[in-house]
Amino acid sequence: MPPTSETLTAERILEATEDVLRRHGPAKATVVDVARALGVSHGSVYRHFRTKAALREAVTKRWLDRTTEELAGIVAATDRDPQTRLRDWLAALLEAKRRKAGDDPELFATYSVLAADAGEVVGAHLTELTDQLTEIVRAGVAAGTFTTPDPATTARALFHATGRFHDPGYAREWERPEVWDDFAAVVDMLVRGLRA
Amino acid sequence: MPPTSETLTAERILEATEDVLRRHGPAKATVVDVARALGVSHGSVYRHFRTKAALREAVTKRWLDRTTEELAGIVAATDRDPQTRLRDWLAALLEAKRRKAGDDPELFATYSVLAADAGEVVGAHLTELTDQLTEIVRAGVAAGTFTTPDPATTARALFHATGRFHDPGYAREWERPEVWDDFAAVVDMLVRGLRA
Repeated sequence: MPPTSETLTAERILEATEDVLRRHGPAKATVVDVARALGVSHGSVYRHFRTKAALREAVTKRWLDRTTEELAGIVAATDRDPQTRLRDWLAALLEAKRRKAGDDPELFATYSVLAADAGEVVGAHLTELTDQLTEIVRAGVAAGTFTTPDPATTARALFHATGRFHDPGYAREWERPEVWDDFAAVVDMLVRGLRA
Repeated sequence: MPPTSETLTAERILEATEDVLRRHGPAKATVVDVARALGVSHGSVYRHFRTKAALREAVTKRWLDRTTEELAGIVAATDRDPQTRLRDWLAALLEAKRRKAGDDPELFATYSVLAADAGEVVGAHLTELTDQLTEIVRAGVAAGTFTTPDPATTARALFHATGRFHDPGYAREWERPEVWDDFAAVVDMLVRGLRA
């Protein structure tokens, strides 16, 4: 049993929750399992997350945030050409998802189950991603590279048009070697459609 | 029981199979149920379809072909502007799928189950659809409206980029009123990307 002297933080609980989910699967994992893994009472866990549902939502958000944080770096690199940043952002999203699905398929399946029950968390995640895209489109308009009267609608359309390359329902397609060619063909057409 | 004197054609068997699937669902429907509905022996059904799997594939193909046939008219209208035909074809595909999913959700769910087991039939259907799109793209290139060095790759990219508006995994999105705005935003961008 791990030492209990270490301060019990929300982050430590979420780490343990992910381990428990990995071991037991989403159907069987309980708050008691999480508490046991941490060597604390389940009451201690409930002090940080008031319900099992709240704990599951928080661990799902943490999993989704890893992707958003990776991509934020591309949005922030405002010294780089918006068109390159758009391509890089979309490719990084596919690559992050492909890695998540391919490296640890069981955990990916677990989070797909959790995400289906966490509508608000997933909705906020999708909004965050399209907000990142909107920022890149806006930068392209400001630079005179892209033309659109409404960057937010355009960002939403870009996100929809590339769903095959980030929507978890397509995870099996990402293992196929031609996925990057398919991706390039779609992104080329979209970038041409955006050009000033 | 219907008259048995009528000639037992493959089409009559497929019609009865669809009725049986609608009533019993894909898990329970049997060849015996189909034979009973037609008032014939199951041997008579097997003379047309050698296995239960073959019968299920044939009825799935018939269901998918209905969409392809509807769209073929748009491809054949070669007197009309290719850009309009492209928009109409994509809109007709969404509308056909939306109708199938919305008007008879149980049958749609049944066919989704059958399609998951009929990889070759579904593959041929997707090829037929992208071939139709390729023909429209080629016509656009010939008319000087579209620019692409490779109409088949472009057609595949168009099909992928509009997956949200025809892939059955998105059926629930098609009920939302904003689906047509989302569709228009994606198609506008794609058409701009194709322009000469």
